[in-house]
Formats: sequence, structure tokens, C-alpha cells
Amino acid sequence: MEPELSDIVAVLERTPSVLRALLQGLPEPWLGKHEGPDAFAPREVVGHLVHGEKTDWIPRLRVILAHGAAQPFERFDRQGYRDADRVPVAVLLDELETLRRASLEALAQSGLTRADLAREGRHPELGPVTLGQLLATWAVHDLNHIGQIVRVMSAGYATAVGPWKQYLGILNR
Amino acid sequence: MEPELSDIVAVLERTPSVLRALLQGLPEPWLGKHEGPDAFAPREVVGHLVHGEKTDWIPRLRVILAHGAAQPFERFDRQGYRDADRVPVAVLLDELETLRRASLEALAQSGLTRADLAREGRHPELGPVTLGQLLATWAVHDLNHIGQIVRVMSAGYATAVGPWKQYLGILNR
Repeated sequence: MEPELSDIVAVLERTPSVLRALLQGLPEPWLGKHEGPDAFAPREVVGHLVHGEKTDWIPRLRVILAHGAAQPFERFDRQGYRDADRVPVAVLLDELETLRRASLEALAQSGLTRADLAREGRHPELGPVTLGQLLATWAVHDLNHIGQIVRVMSAGYATAVGPWKQYLGILNR
Repeated sequence: MEPELSDIVAVLERTPSVLRALLQGLPEPWLGKHEGPDAFAPREVVGHLVHGEKTDWIPRLRVILAHGAAQPFERFDRQGYRDADRVPVAVLLDELETLRRASLEALAQSGLTRADLAREGRHPELGPVTLGQLLATWAVHDLNHIGQIVRVMSAGYATAVGPWKQYLGILNR
């Protein structure tokens, strides 16, 4: 599948409503921490996405457009969602929706051409990357975290499903 | 996490709108088959969930309530979504929404008590199961397939993300 900017945007613009449909009004036991090594709570995931809108995707796009590979990106703070535990999930969902809309407006205003997707930037750990890779990663990062939320939610029922567990791949990875 | 019927219903009632938010109007490249061993197409997943509403969850609930463990469930046809490839995803999403609403009405009308969750049924392969396990499995089955859709979508961009692939767990399982 050859990434088209419009395909990437189609995923990015849907994520806030996907997360709202999944999480808004959900009873508290689903939103908090569960046991297990992968016990990232769903509300923390939303907080992490909020933090990414502020510090990761569009800021890095701007670095590439302004400086190319000459200026490495700022490191992304994966713990930057720290406060999310004290914020209602509905507030985080609103914040994500607002920030994502602004991000996509900024993306549209940058007027990228197909040729721009090959422009190079520099990741502080990964080295040379392209603008197209940054945008594809933004979309997959969303999908990754939707997958993480449903995985963590499922883990809370790993015992409750009884012998069906063996049929449910999400409980066996 | 001890399953409560209301917690299970909270997941079940959200799934059609989660899938609609994720898939409706999504460009075709995301909806069809991708390469790789896990190449279940997103629209087939919706077709599979539609088939489950018709033949799996509420029918099995009724078998337990009527016959207990004396009558094994019918086997579930995991390929019963076969026609989904020829049906627009918006049609499948509508069908899932309608069927799920009817399923949850049937569940509510069955007036289950907490004690009912311990009632036994018999799975044709797994043997003894409880009504509570059936309902918990229904919810995790939804989450499992949401996770499958985002995983299959992500796989289409496994190359496009370039060196970021190593940070994206969804591409490395």
C-alpha cells in the first residue's frame, strides 16, 4: 500500500471520534489500570496522544520544512502524559479533538506536494527519516494506541472469559 | 476486574459506533486485503461480527436459559462472513448496529440476575462454560476484532513508516 497524504489524513481525522465512541461514558473499571505488564490505562493513552499533538507531529513537520536534516527533532517525552490520571477522560477526549483539528489544519496549510514527502529530517535516535515516514508513523501511532486500549481492556477479562481464552488472540499475545 | 453485566453491556453497545467512526468513509485501500499472514480485511471483520449477532451470542444465551448444559451450542461458522467482500462497509455497519441493538434488547428482556451468570452451558469444543463467561467473551471478542482491524490497517504501512517501525509495537507482534 503506497501511502497517499489523503489516506493518512483519513486515519488521523477519525481517531478522536473513534476514541470518543470507545471511551466516553465507559464505566470506571475499564478506564483505570489493570494488572499485567502491559498495564497502561486507557485514559493515559489519550493523555499520551494529547501530548503528541502538542510536542511531536506538527512540530517535527515544521522542523523538516524549515531546516531539513540539519536540525534533529526534539526528543519526545513518552511520559509526558503524567497528569492524565487526574483528568476526566471526557476532558482529555475534548482536548485531543481540538488539538487534532488544529494539527490537520496546519498540515493542510503547509500545502505539501507528493515530492515534499521525500524531504529529509533527522530523528535524534533513528537518524535520517523522511517527511512521508513521519506522516505514516503518525497514523500508525494512532492505530497502535487504539490497539493498546482494546488490549488493556481485554486483559481485565482474561479470567472472566473462562475456557474461551484460547480462542481470543488479544489475550494470548 | 470482576465482570458486571452493566460493564459488559457498556462495551457491547459501543462497538457499532466505534467501528463506524473508524471505517465509514475510509478510503478503499484501508478496507481491502493487505499482504501478510494476518490479512483479514477490515470489512470482513465487520461481516464476521454481523454473522455472530445472528448465530452466536444471543442464540447461545437462549440455549443456556432453556436447556442449561444438557444441550451443546451449535458450532459457530468462523467463515460465515463470506459475502462481506461484496457488500459496502457502510451497509455492513448499518446491519451490525441494527442487530446489536436487537441483541442488547433481548439481553435486557432476559432479566438476568447476578446468580444467572453462574448458569452452565456446554460448548461443543470447550465443554462446560457459564453464562457469565459467554457474556464476557462477547465483549472481549468485540475488542479483539477492533484490535485486529487496527493491526491489519497498520500492516499496510509497515514499510512506509521507515525506521520508526521498531517503536511501533503493532508492527512487531
